Amino acid sequence: MSDTLTPQSQDFPKWYNEIVYKADLADQSPVRGCMIIKPYGYELWEAIKANLDRRFKATGHQNAYFPLFIPESFLKKEAEHVEGFAPELAVVTHGGGKELQEPYVVRPTSETVIGEAFSRWVQSHRDLPLLINQWANVVRWEMRTRPFLRTAEFLWQEGHTAHSSHEEAQEETMRMLDVYADFAINEAAIPVIQGRKSKMERFAGAENSYTIEAMMRDTKALQSGTSHNLGQNFAKAFEIDYTDENNERKFCWTTSWGVSTRMVGAVVMTHGDDKGLRLPPRIAPIQVVIVTIYKKDEQRTVVMETAERLASELREAGIRVHLDDRPNLSPGFKYNDWEMRGVPVRMEVGPKDVEKQSVAVARRDVPGKAGKQFLPQAGIVDVIKNLLVDIQASLLADATAFRDSHIKEVADDDYDAFGEAIQDGWALSWFCGSPECEKKVKDDFSAVSRCFPLDQPYPNETGHCIVCGTQAQEMAYFAKAY
Amino acid sequence: MSDTLTPQSQDFPKWYNEIVYKADLADQSPVRGCMIIKPYGYELWEAIKANLDRRFKATGHQNAYFPLFIPESFLKKEAEHVEGFAPELAVVTHGGGKELQEPYVVRPTSETVIGEAFSRWVQSHRDLPLLINQWANVVRWEMRTRPFLRTAEFLWQEGHTAHSSHEEAQEETMRMLDVYADFAINEAAIPVIQGRKSKMERFAGAENSYTIEAMMRDTKALQSGTSHNLGQNFAKAFEIDYTDENNERKFCWTTSWGVSTRMVGAVVMTHGDDKGLRLPPRIAPIQVVIVTIYKKDEQRTVVMETAERLASELREAGIRVHLDDRPNLSPGFKYNDWEMRGVPVRMEVGPKDVEKQSVAVARRDVPGKAGKQFLPQAGIVDVIKNLLVDIQASLLADATAFRDSHIKEVADDDYDAFGEAIQDGWALSWFCGSPECEKKVKDDFSAVSRCFPLDQPYPNETGHCIVCGTQAQEMAYFAKAY
Repeated sequence: MSDTLTPQSQDFPKWYNEIVYKADLADQSPVRGCMIIKPYGYELWEAIKANLDRRFKATGHQNAYFPLFIPESFLKKEAEHVEGFAPELAVVTHGGGKELQEPYVVRPTSETVIGEAFSRWVQSHRDLPLLINQWANVVRWEMRTRPFLRTAEFLWQEGHTAHSSHEEAQEETMRMLDVYADFAINEAAIPVIQGRKSKMERFAGAENSYTIEAMMRDTKALQSGTSHNLGQNFAKAFEIDYTDENNERKFCWTTSWGVSTRMVGAVVMTHGDDKGLRLPPRIAPIQVVIVTIYKKDEQRTVVMETAERLASELREAGIRVHLDDRPNLSPGFKYNDWEMRGVPVRMEVGPKDVEKQSVAVARRDVPGKAGKQFLPQAGIVDVIKNLLVDIQASLLADATAFRDSHIKEVADDDYDAFGEAIQDGWALSWFCGSPECEKKVKDDFSAVSRCFPLDQPYPNETGHCIVCGTQAQEMAYFAKAY
Repeated sequence: MSDTLTPQSQDFPKWYNEIVYKADLADQSPVRGCMIIKPYGYELWEAIKANLDRRFKATGHQNAYFPLFIPESFLKKEAEHVEGFAPELAVVTHGGGKELQEPYVVRPTSETVIGEAFSRWVQSHRDLPLLINQWANVVRWEMRTRPFLRTAEFLWQEGHTAHSSHEEAQEETMRMLDVYADFAINEAAIPVIQGRKSKMERFAGAENSYTIEAMMRDTKALQSGTSHNLGQNFAKAFEIDYTDENNERKFCWTTSWGVSTRMVGAVVMTHGDDKGLRLPPRIAPIQVVIVTIYKKDEQRTVVMETAERLASELREAGIRVHLDDRPNLSPGFKYNDWEMRGVPVRMEVGPKDVEKQSVAVARRDVPGKAGKQFLPQAGIVDVIKNLLVDIQASLLADATAFRDSHIKEVADDDYDAFGEAIQDGWALSWFCGSPECEKKVKDDFSAVSRCFPLDQPYPNETGHCIVCGTQAQEMAYFAKAY
């Protein structure tokens, strides 16, 4: 396998496809639109999972597990929901050698089957709020698939909650959006923007959808997590109701929110460069790789002694270390290999380092000699700890600077400038939010609105919609998107 | 919901069904044969998962994820395999609104789809051994289902490995059986017996299957985990081959091994009693519940102060604590509730305890006054730590004693005594291993062979098969089974 990548500037989609396979994140499978997540990619997903799961539990949610199959009739109970998902369903028609009386769909999302359960679990106001999360696989029969970004089967978590008031459901919706943003920014070093989706971009069946939007290195937008206030749509469709303090029967207000293996794609396309991945230390499966260098067998003994001692010192400090002592591979090959896999810090130990009690330390985020230091072995653990913190911060700063330099605020009467801005970044402009205007932008520039940011630049002003010119209350980001 | 259970002695299956729902482990679902795993049951599964996953990683395995769907043609490549699984398959015939050219089956197990990947991943002897594990859901269209024990969809892990020799594959098979036994005995307090399956009870496509067998409180056997040496059957069917040191092309030797949510059922039926679950402390979602007792509001303040202080002291020591201060429920109701859920230790804090700086501590495994102590609050953390270790050991000892008192070694010419032994426990007897003899036992007594134990009572002797009287090399356990 060649160890070079097509440069991002030359062909970004090609770069992405190559890096996914060359960094050993995923493999193709013989099943249409489905990938195999390889160990290195799965470890990254496990880190994402563990970090999110901890946050869900800290905010009072409990995990549960609901059936993979959903009776077809369930899906039809919420009109917009079935309309949105019907074209993407995989359908089980036979089981145990017989045709089923009612076909099952493989869950594309679980609002319906969980709604049915909630209708039994919620009886009294004392049962509320009900705060559930599920880690699961889901299936959506997508026409065009790309590893991690859009696959027929993917892994995700879906939170589902029920509340006694609209306010409380809205609070939950925003709380989980915050959890997602906090994770993305502070663990994955992805400077996401929080916002509300337009009517056209809303989840099928939601009253309002919120999103964290990330800018990839080709300036396209990637929706990286969503949180939906479902109003009473599913509560009414599935009769999720309760008796309140005054003994009156009321419908609940529900929410749902999800993050998927797509987040792996977000990490790849936010931080990756022409040499490979650059993984944020906090979620990197391997934070430090130690490469041994020697020519003769007697050198190996002393080099390995030092390398193993350093590895175990780092491990004891809670750092995830891998010691690469593969024979028959040159140090140079190994450096490229670990750069491709995006390991934040590389340490090199050779006979001279053993002699001098030193070690070479290279950071992945600063290429070449500028990123390489020769340091004393004594006190190396603290140095590495600080270095990892520094790399984490530098990746976030780098991605933030890239994002900010590719967002252009557009005057509200300059549709041409708007169109130009979308060619090479995101445009920020006043927008009325109508599906008609959104459709025109899509037709004209192959771009869509990404969100009305929660953090509006001019919160007390209004403007004119960049498309139709009518009064607009909010500004929105527009971009080409995955 | 009534808080009493049908006694085990009266109707064990009824007891089991009641406890699963009353202890809030699972709920019924509208999908045929599928259950919903409720938060308390899922937390138990998460504890099982975490403990197994740690062991898999410590023995060099890596997690990965393979597609849910398997092309029907794949399954047919291994003749015994398809014969074994064909009657239980769920089949997807439509995707994205169209009929599929080749139907997909929903994975009942993943030897085939993983075998195809292995055939691409393994090229050289340097790629071996390949040690992969997958956490996933699988579907088997079972006719008669029971929560956790046999459901159409269930959660499990499936290990899949490839090796360069039969010996190495056999070592791996036994290593993972040991891992399972170690987990069952030392975490779940289930005194499993390790053994080899008879020809009839083997996994479809395996050369040899090994099992950990547990005795439930009704003396029936539950296969709680299996490890298979697949020989070269799947390697040949999927062309998993490699170039050895002498540049010759060789087929691999593969293994697979799995433990499922069935383990939750094993925990329930090994330890549960007429008052509910009894959870081994090492895997209990809640190890200590603190119940507050007071009548007046001013009492609540001081009681809660003490209860919260105790809870945080225990939490700091790494103990999983739940503080139950639910209003409008009597202490007695709460005691029953937590006994039903099997929490190992209950602490009671009332106004007198605050005054005396004491606390009442009740252990779930010793009923009534004998299990209750009044202890000083000072130094309580160490006392509780030791108590949890003690309860863990006592549950294992209890289950071992029960098991041993219900196993009967039968003289090799006394088929009647054999039949009697199986009515009320397990029979240990010489067995030739033939499917014909096994079938006769099944017809006569509705029982099957569970395994040839690895630990043979008379390793240097032979005997006569209890069924046909021909010479037998080994003894086997026979029992009615789940």
